[in-house]
Amino acid sequence: MPERKNIGDNAFILPEPMTVVGTMYGGKPNFMAVAWVTRCNYKPCLMAICINKKHATSESITANQEFSINLASESMLEKVDAAGLISGRKLDKSSLFEVHFGELKNAPLVMEAPLSLEMRLHDKLELDTNTIFVGEVMGVWTEDQYLTDEFVDIEKVRPYTLTMPDNRYWAVGRQLGRAWHDGKAVKNQLKG
Amino acid sequence: MPERKNIGDNAFILPEPMTVVGTMYGGKPNFMAVAWVTRCNYKPCLMAICINKKHATSESITANQEFSINLASESMLEKVDAAGLISGRKLDKSSLFEVHFGELKNAPLVMEAPLSLEMRLHDKLELDTNTIFVGEVMGVWTEDQYLTDEFVDIEKVRPYTLTMPDNRYWAVGRQLGRAWHDGKAVKNQLKG
Repeated sequence: MPERKNIGDNAFILPEPMTVVGTMYGGKPNFMAVAWVTRCNYKPCLMAICINKKHATSESITANQEFSINLASESMLEKVDAAGLISGRKLDKSSLFEVHFGELKNAPLVMEAPLSLEMRLHDKLELDTNTIFVGEVMGVWTEDQYLTDEFVDIEKVRPYTLTMPDNRYWAVGRQLGRAWHDGKAVKNQLKG
Repeated sequence: MPERKNIGDNAFILPEPMTVVGTMYGGKPNFMAVAWVTRCNYKPCLMAICINKKHATSESITANQEFSINLASESMLEKVDAAGLISGRKLDKSSLFEVHFGELKNAPLVMEAPLSLEMRLHDKLELDTNTIFVGEVMGVWTEDQYLTDEFVDIEKVRPYTLTMPDNRYWAVGRQLGRAWHDGKAVKNQLKG
C-alpha cells in the first residue's frame, strides 16, 4: 500500500484551458487572461468564469452584463500572457487584439482567437476574493480554417492549458480515447 | 480580413481537466466523472464543480456537505469513463476504486489518483439543469512517486482533458512556456 501524504491546499496542479475574456472598459475593448473557466450548465449553455473582484474586468461585467470568452490558440501565447501581466486600470490594452462584434455591443470578440463566445451575464456568486460570473452563450464565432467537415477541429484550433502554482503552459497532446465509450468493458464487469 | 461566422451555442470545444468526484452514497463510496471543474477563489482555496441536479452525486453533496475531487491520470482512463457511464442510483460503483479518508468522513479519496482533494462545501449556485458546488480545499493527498523536489510533477501525474461535444480525451502535451513571464516583451511594447 503506497503511503499518501497531505501536502497542503495550494500545491495541487490542474490543467485548465487558457482563454481571453473581453469586456468594454472606458469605451474601449479590454482583455484579461483567464484559465479559471468551465462549462457549468447543460441547457441553456452556460459558462462560468472566476475573476478577482479587484480587476477592471469584474467591474466591466457587472456594469455591462456582457462579456466574451475567447479560446486562446498557441500562436496567441505571448499576447495572452501580456494581457495577464497588465492591469486595464493602468494601461490601455485595446491594441493587443483586433476585435469584431456579434449581437452584443459590450462583448468584444477577438479576431485572432479560433473560437469566440458572446456571453450575456446570467447569474453570479460572490466569494471571498473572486466572483463567479455565469454567462449564457449567445453565439460562437469561428472561421472555416478551424473546421473539418463543419466541426471544430482541435488540431487546427490548438488550444493550450495552464497549471498553477508552477505557472506553466502546456499544449494539448495526442488523443487518448473516447468519452462515454472507452469504459464500456469495465461497466460490463461491474454489472457482472 | 477572414470571414467569421456564428456556428451556434453547443459547437465549441474547451479542453477541461478530467477528475473523479467522490461522495458517500447509501453508506458506500460513489464516484462520478467530472470535467466541468475549475479553481474559483484564490484565498481561501476554493474549487467549483458543476453537476447535473439529477445525479446521485448532487444529492450526496447536499446531504453530507463534503466530497472529494480526484485528478484522473491517463492510467485511470477506462475506469473513470466507466464511472461516467453508470448511475450510482442503478449500480454500486464502490468497487471501482480503493479509497482512503483524510479528516472528512464523507469525502472518500481515490488511492489510485495522483492527487486527491478533500472538499468541504462552502457555497452553491443553482442553475437550470446543474448546480455549481463550491468547495474549500481542506487537504491535498499525494505520494512521493508524483513529486520531484517536493513539487507535484505533471510528467509523473499525467492528467488529461476532455473536449465536448466531440467527446474525446487528450493527453497533456509539451510545455509551451511560462505564465506571467512570456508576455513581458509584448507588455514593454504596449508601455512604449
